[in-house]
Amino acid sequence: MENFSFYLPTIVHFGKGQISSLGASIKQFGGSKVLLAYGGGSIKANGIYNAVVAALKKANIPFVDCDGIKPNPPVEDVNRGIKLYRDNGCDFILAVGGGSTIDACKAMAAGVCYDGDVMDLMAGGKGEIKTAAPLAAVLTMAGTGSELDLGGVITAGADHKKHTIMHPLLYPKFSILDPTYTFSVPEKHSMAGSFDALDHLIECYFIAGSESTDVQNMMNEGLMRSIVKNAPLILENPENYDARANIMWASSMALASFQFALGKKGSNWPMHAMGHELSSLYDMTHGVTLALIAPSYLAFTLEKAPEYTWLFANFARNVFGVVETDDALAAKMGIAKLKEFTLTLKMPNNLKEVGVEEDKLEYLAEKATEWGNIGALCKIEKDEALEIYKNAFA
Amino acid sequence: MENFSFYLPTIVHFGKGQISSLGASIKQFGGSKVLLAYGGGSIKANGIYNAVVAALKKANIPFVDCDGIKPNPPVEDVNRGIKLYRDNGCDFILAVGGGSTIDACKAMAAGVCYDGDVMDLMAGGKGEIKTAAPLAAVLTMAGTGSELDLGGVITAGADHKKHTIMHPLLYPKFSILDPTYTFSVPEKHSMAGSFDALDHLIECYFIAGSESTDVQNMMNEGLMRSIVKNAPLILENPENYDARANIMWASSMALASFQFALGKKGSNWPMHAMGHELSSLYDMTHGVTLALIAPSYLAFTLEKAPEYTWLFANFARNVFGVVETDDALAAKMGIAKLKEFTLTLKMPNNLKEVGVEEDKLEYLAEKATEWGNIGALCKIEKDEALEIYKNAFA
Repeated sequence: MENFSFYLPTIVHFGKGQISSLGASIKQFGGSKVLLAYGGGSIKANGIYNAVVAALKKANIPFVDCDGIKPNPPVEDVNRGIKLYRDNGCDFILAVGGGSTIDACKAMAAGVCYDGDVMDLMAGGKGEIKTAAPLAAVLTMAGTGSELDLGGVITAGADHKKHTIMHPLLYPKFSILDPTYTFSVPEKHSMAGSFDALDHLIECYFIAGSESTDVQNMMNEGLMRSIVKNAPLILENPENYDARANIMWASSMALASFQFALGKKGSNWPMHAMGHELSSLYDMTHGVTLALIAPSYLAFTLEKAPEYTWLFANFARNVFGVVETDDALAAKMGIAKLKEFTLTLKMPNNLKEVGVEEDKLEYLAEKATEWGNIGALCKIEKDEALEIYKNAFA
Repeated sequence: MENFSFYLPTIVHFGKGQISSLGASIKQFGGSKVLLAYGGGSIKANGIYNAVVAALKKANIPFVDCDGIKPNPPVEDVNRGIKLYRDNGCDFILAVGGGSTIDACKAMAAGVCYDGDVMDLMAGGKGEIKTAAPLAAVLTMAGTGSELDLGGVITAGADHKKHTIMHPLLYPKFSILDPTYTFSVPEKHSMAGSFDALDHLIECYFIAGSESTDVQNMMNEGLMRSIVKNAPLILENPENYDARANIMWASSMALASFQFALGKKGSNWPMHAMGHELSSLYDMTHGVTLALIAPSYLAFTLEKAPEYTWLFANFARNVFGVVETDDALAAKMGIAKLKEFTLTLKMPNNLKEVGVEEDKLEYLAEKATEWGNIGALCKIEKDEALEIYKNAFA
């Protein structure tokens, strides 16, 4: 097992009615004026906005609205939030939403304390995060795990490139996770979120060095199994509290300081890299891009890294209940089961079906690998990425 | 799923050579003079003491020794530490050891900030923990998980009763987990520690309300499986780094803010309650008492709470690989497998074998239940506890 450090300071308040802890929690971290950030109108339609506002008013905490944070959040929304925060003398940022809103708020939290362009603070940028405003999250959509991690993804530039911002100061101070807040999430987004969480686990599972990390692998298998069991229950009944609760907690645990990648030989999240390019070019829902890419990526990887056939076989048996004893056969059956699972979640079948143009695949492969090899078990450079996109195409 | 809160602020530095982070980590939390607490002479014999002292000296951090912390730590050791801390103007407590030393240091951390008897701060006592000295751990024995949790167990009084101290301020600020530090732990204690960790997971698995906590159950099953796989590898080769690393991380994860009991209907750790009484009366190693009690407790519980037969069957299949499809049969096979596993770890076979007197069982049952029902799936009052002790006797 490789050396690692682990740190997960976010306080979680999980369950029905936990919004009642909002005011005291904000005060615990010194908040006296809140920038209240959220996305579209859904939280106004479903009553969550009113519940948040009521909790703030009850605690006598003034706030300023920062609405309209877009999915795949653009840096313009981040800059708008930074300006609102400063203009109004806020000292706390509250994200009410899913991964996009929380990610945007993380960039705001760093940006309000930085005298320069917030893009400087993205990975590889010239700036440095030395301090950040305290932020917290009220989660309204399960999937990204941003509520229990230190990173965010921001879209910027003419090519809608995705940039990462990451720092221990950007962990939410607390996150309120009420499964009933996800009851009204549309089916497509509920399923895309579930697959996003599953894919985080798959990214962390198939990494070189997994020979030595039984703890991480075996906990991960169990967590993946819980998603495979519970996501379809939400399809049957969107108001199934326990299914929503399991998916919400699974999504948080799936990321939680990248706990399942600890002790392995690093990874650069190849499926996410390839999926992000699809979102950049076609503004596709993140989880949907992952469902399209993952089976193709895994099939390619199994072929190129046959020394990890045992890992694919464990995945098949311990996540999908495959009983085949031959590793090579089991490995392939596991990938087939995963593809089948994406269809159970009503994800599209291939890239062509969602309007991706075949002549754009080369561009996508180039962009996904522009910083080099993104492989976790074998080399994934441009040619390899292209083959994966092609196999996912039709 | 029941509502819960989750908080796990301890920073972990895991792996070979992580002692190099000691000085900077202490300074990060304002430490300038350290109370260095440890147990017997083993850390002097195996070089860990020298490594810790070298790291402190390199960072120019003065320290005062508090040696001789005993297993099942008595309050006298805690009071000795409190006096040393105060007399020498310390501002940081460093525990170098296993659960006993860390537990004692947690009580010291609370006690040095309390103007009165430290026993007041135990659960049910008249005092209140309002502040605590910062403490950290260098772990030298895997099992208790005290390095990643907020509680400790202290022995006090003529009857050697075990008392619990617990507060979020008592999380170690950081814990250094170097698997090589456990290479020289004697076989008996390595195996007892492994079983202690497994038993924490069993305590958290068999709790009412488990119908709704797939995430917690399934992750737990994976973690238990990793212990079942790796503990015997340590028997074969005590210097198997990866096996030691997996057991060390499994032990920490097994407790980590009691993550696997979250969302269930509460528990009062019945096996621990019954095991602690054995330790109190016979000064037995904690993990050994659990290995003696667990199979008997589970068999009793299965009979009295047949509505949870499915949970026992899942345990059998997902932890021990039982393939039986009939739940009732599988459930029993799982308990038999657990008993077999205790013998694989060279734990004793029954209470009689380790010198427990049959005429003391009634006393033990009375003490274990003196605060009432300790059941997690069914009622465990004095008569029930007595039956469990009797079934474990011979």
